[in-house]
Amino acid sequence: MPDAILDDISHRRFNPLRGSWVLVSPHRTKRPWQGQQEGASENVLPAYDSSCYLCPGNKRAAGDCNPKYDSTFVFVNDYSAVKEQQVDYESTPQSDSLESRLLRAEGTKGKCYVITFSPEHNLTLADMPAPTILPVIETWTKIYTSHLDPLSPLVKASKPTPNPSSAPNGNIIDQPTEQFRYMQIFENKGTAMGCSNPHPHGQIWTTTSLPEEPGIELQHLARYRHEHSGAHMLEDYAKLESEKGERTVFENSSFWAGCPWWGTWPFEIMVVSKSHKRALVDLDQKEREHLAEVISEITRRYDNLFETSFPYSMGIHQAPLSGTDEEIECSHFHIHFYPPLLRSATVRKFLVGYEMMAEPQRDITPEQAAKRLRDCGGELYRKRLN
Amino acid sequence: MPDAILDDISHRRFNPLRGSWVLVSPHRTKRPWQGQQEGASENVLPAYDSSCYLCPGNKRAAGDCNPKYDSTFVFVNDYSAVKEQQVDYESTPQSDSLESRLLRAEGTKGKCYVITFSPEHNLTLADMPAPTILPVIETWTKIYTSHLDPLSPLVKASKPTPNPSSAPNGNIIDQPTEQFRYMQIFENKGTAMGCSNPHPHGQIWTTTSLPEEPGIELQHLARYRHEHSGAHMLEDYAKLESEKGERTVFENSSFWAGCPWWGTWPFEIMVVSKSHKRALVDLDQKEREHLAEVISEITRRYDNLFETSFPYSMGIHQAPLSGTDEEIECSHFHIHFYPPLLRSATVRKFLVGYEMMAEPQRDITPEQAAKRLRDCGGELYRKRLN
Ligand SMILES: O=P(O)(O)O[C@H]1O[C@H](CO)[C@@H](O)[C@H](O)[C@H]1O
Ligand SMILES: O=P(O)(O)O[C@H]1O[C@H](CO)[C@@H](O)[C@H](O)[C@H]1O
Repeated sequence: MPDAILDDISHRRFNPLRGSWVLVSPHRTKRPWQGQQEGASENVLPAYDSSCYLCPGNKRAAGDCNPKYDSTFVFVNDYSAVKEQQVDYESTPQSDSLESRLLRAEGTKGKCYVITFSPEHNLTLADMPAPTILPVIETWTKIYTSHLDPLSPLVKASKPTPNPSSAPNGNIIDQPTEQFRYMQIFENKGTAMGCSNPHPHGQIWTTTSLPEEPGIELQHLARYRHEHSGAHMLEDYAKLESEKGERTVFENSSFWAGCPWWGTWPFEIMVVSKSHKRALVDLDQKEREHLAEVISEITRRYDNLFETSFPYSMGIHQAPLSGTDEEIECSHFHIHFYPPLLRSATVRKFLVGYEMMAEPQRDITPEQAAKRLRDCGGELYRKRLN
Repeated sequence: MPDAILDDISHRRFNPLRGSWVLVSPHRTKRPWQGQQEGASENVLPAYDSSCYLCPGNKRAAGDCNPKYDSTFVFVNDYSAVKEQQVDYESTPQSDSLESRLLRAEGTKGKCYVITFSPEHNLTLADMPAPTILPVIETWTKIYTSHLDPLSPLVKASKPTPNPSSAPNGNIIDQPTEQFRYMQIFENKGTAMGCSNPHPHGQIWTTTSLPEEPGIELQHLARYRHEHSGAHMLEDYAKLESEKGERTVFENSSFWAGCPWWGTWPFEIMVVSKSHKRALVDLDQKEREHLAEVISEITRRYDNLFETSFPYSMGIHQAPLSGTDEEIECSHFHIHFYPPLLRSATVRKFLVGYEMMAEPQRDITPEQAAKRLRDCGGELYRKRLN
């Protein structure tokens, strides 16, 4: 256990992956809540919704028709935040003017995909047994692989292609016209997390630039490796947490999943591969199955915790699509789950005011959160409707 | 104008105050919104609410009674996130073990104040004419000054005390028992920003540690000063923006207020003192009046934009209470306003998914946002109710 005193006093914990601190105020959950309440989610959705632009066979915004897919389905977002076709742009600094110091910009090209997790409109990952999550992981792997820099050391490492029987059909993954630098795979789940369609789906944004967060993590992973004679931070971390156990929510022989020491969101979870895996392509079939199991265990526990469809944003961090050998080698596959709920299906944590201006602040400790999530495994609290 | 092309293409802009990038996707506002809607606010509140723990004369959670104050009122938060009285704590690293590398913590003491802006329950800063905002600024200044390190160069610089006629009464500002490092003054306004009581009020959290955000800014301010022979980044920036005008929302001779080049939130505003002011204590009476005018102009325009009580978090960044002479000298007084609304009183921007995992992303450009805010000055759209 961490020093018992940390359950009682306000303190800061250090996040070595970002090089940043979070303020922990364990005594603060006692305050009454009079603010905004989220709507508790009830699953009253049909398995097929004729007005949903993600259901099989339906029309999308740009007029295209979805195939009658039966597992996952990938297409280019009709309202992409980044585009592949646009003019090149680089601001031209006029030798040390105030403008070139203070008004810097650079063009970014990219491509945004949407990936459905299932043809059934009223499912979530929490409803899906691990074997039906496997095709999602295989599709992620396929997209990641098809966007890799041909010169990346990851191309050779690439494991045998996913089991064809569960491979997705009808996916629209064009060859990119440009070499992208990074691929961000993520899911926003629930209206509280800005998700505008309940059909189970995630997104994939891939860009010519390395985004802030993976960039910061890469720096800290590289420094750790350098300072500790080649050791990988997250390999060390998964080992340590698995031994200690108090922040573990679920683990199997390939992955540790738990509430990280430095987590910001009340029930934040990080999934870390126990051995050094740089990216999805480094996982073999068994490891992909283990990952499906972990995702299923986490999402089911989340829903069981407050007996609601638990909102979250989740995202995969892994090696850049193109980069130096050093960048690729120090990358370590992991997944972040950032869920906003704090006390019940309707009361969330707001990271506002102090958190925006000064420093992230959390109320319950990661150890308390992990214990509650560990204790609510087992069957999903609700029955499937269809 | 910035290169016109930036209105059309996805690009990144650099924030020199944080050393970080933001992704701008101007073409993206066209996508339809089917997600969560905020409740539009209607002001149907009474001027006095007997159940409000902030109204004059009422009882608070811990049983204390508020005085019958007539301008601002300050007291120690009954549910403080940091406490003054707690045991000292410093984790004791066992010479380079995994634990001491990866599970780092430090105790933090501090104090949290609440400050009401007015005795009237149904006002907001937008409803208050500039002269009635002045006591708020004077109270902030008073609290800041009373917590300064006696050895700080700011103590001597301290300008004549606020005009006694508008000075607050009944405030509870104890001498701190410990020297704090930083004071974060902020306001969360509106239920969308986690505010649980509509009575106009802000908060002040002060800690023995320097929080993340002001710490990051201090580093970048110091580096700029060092690299540009003593120039102050934000003095340069206010000058440049005031000349260019396209991101200006409002300015007077002491402050520039506008949508910063690198803003993340759709209608984010930064208020910057035009000459180098390190902290509230550096402002003279005239400058405090100018600041009251700026706050009044911003909050009124925010409300006029979508004809609603505009939610936001705002916070003041200024010199640490104690620190090196260099830290204090490179500090530059400024205020951030982070408002979430994007398209209307009910449709907000969610910084989730990609924004959490990869990089902040905005839809409209700061130039577009500033123009809209400039154009909606004048009288407040609604009438006061009482
Ligand atoms: O203290 P309040 O107003 O109850 O709480 C609000 O502001 C705090 C400081 O920004 C946040 O930590 C809380 O999550 C938020 O709900
Ligand atoms: O693309 P969506 O699901 O419509 O939109 C959602 O996810 C995006 C990526 O995280 C965010 O930029 C949007 O603010 C959010 O509403």
